[in-house]
Amino acid sequence: MRELRDAIIQKGKALGGNVVKVDMFLNHRLDTALIFRMGAAFAEHFRAKQPEVILTVEASGIALALATARALSDLPVLFAKKSAGAAQGEGLAQAPVYSFTHKKWNNICVDKAYLPEGTRVLIIDDFLADGQAVRGMRMLCEQCACPVVGVGIGIEKGFQDGGMDLRRDGVNLLSLAVITGISPEGELLVEG
Amino acid sequence: MRELRDAIIQKGKALGGNVVKVDMFLNHRLDTALIFRMGAAFAEHFRAKQPEVILTVEASGIALALATARALSDLPVLFAKKSAGAAQGEGLAQAPVYSFTHKKWNNICVDKAYLPEGTRVLIIDDFLADGQAVRGMRMLCEQCACPVVGVGIGIEKGFQDGGMDLRRDGVNLLSLAVITGISPEGELLVEG
Repeated sequence: MRELRDAIIQKGKALGGNVVKVDMFLNHRLDTALIFRMGAAFAEHFRAKQPEVILTVEASGIALALATARALSDLPVLFAKKSAGAAQGEGLAQAPVYSFTHKKWNNICVDKAYLPEGTRVLIIDDFLADGQAVRGMRMLCEQCACPVVGVGIGIEKGFQDGGMDLRRDGVNLLSLAVITGISPEGELLVEG
Repeated sequence: MRELRDAIIQKGKALGGNVVKVDMFLNHRLDTALIFRMGAAFAEHFRAKQPEVILTVEASGIALALATARALSDLPVLFAKKSAGAAQGEGLAQAPVYSFTHKKWNNICVDKAYLPEGTRVLIIDDFLADGQAVRGMRMLCEQCACPVVGVGIGIEKGFQDGGMDLRRDGVNLLSLAVITGISPEGELLVEG
């Protein structure tokens, strides 16, 4: 997606240690118009797979998931939580996810009541690097016996393993932009 | 807002200890069409105040904030984070917020670069109980010398102090539904 590629090149920053900062439009400040155009692109690509619910994980996946749901005739969104919390249900599906940003393991969880067996799930997330979050969400779907009809990613870091693993598994993966590398000068190399 | 009131009465649950569970449409599973109608209601009420950015706090405020931004000609959204993290900027505004759900203090923070002095801020959140999160967001705006032109809340718990405190301070507060109490039978009493 050319507009996203341009935004990454013009506004994104490589911080070292493979950390890419795009918080001026995707995961702290949101460029609302861009988010909805990204959602529309996911909707166009995955509509034929007839998803019934959009699954993401809090927090920064929520905006893209909602925009995608809006473009798919207001499908419901389910966002996995990073802690069980006081207000959660009893029938939880849980999966461990390692956060490289915060350097710790979290259990992500969903209330099974919202993923009835057989529900066709479209997974949406803002970033794909090592693929931990998507792996966790696929585990949640497996526990609930729900098929994953596709995975839509805003920005894939092509030099980490997440995307390769999903493609090897035969997952229908759409990444709207792929950062293929970081030049020695700290410039982001992007396809999309 | 009658549709929201009906959703709370039909689907919400009182869990005891003043915890109200509405995670089937507002803060775990999202009813996309309802979220956008709530956003449209905020937009209609606050449009004349000419907000320039929507401020919320991760995670469950993001959906409502984005829907409101969409209805206000694609205003940008800024969501305060609950941890500084590895990918954050250096110029952070921070404020302490107590979470009754998780029974601990968090610092919420925003990158000051995204709240330039004088920016007109509309605060949006899903819930208002004791008002901790909104108080924290107002502190962030104060640190950045940005006026808060209004506060839009999905569900206010009218039997807790947050709403009263804001009204006493002269804040332009719109709560789309107010839970005024919980009956001895555990029924939610709602206005909206």
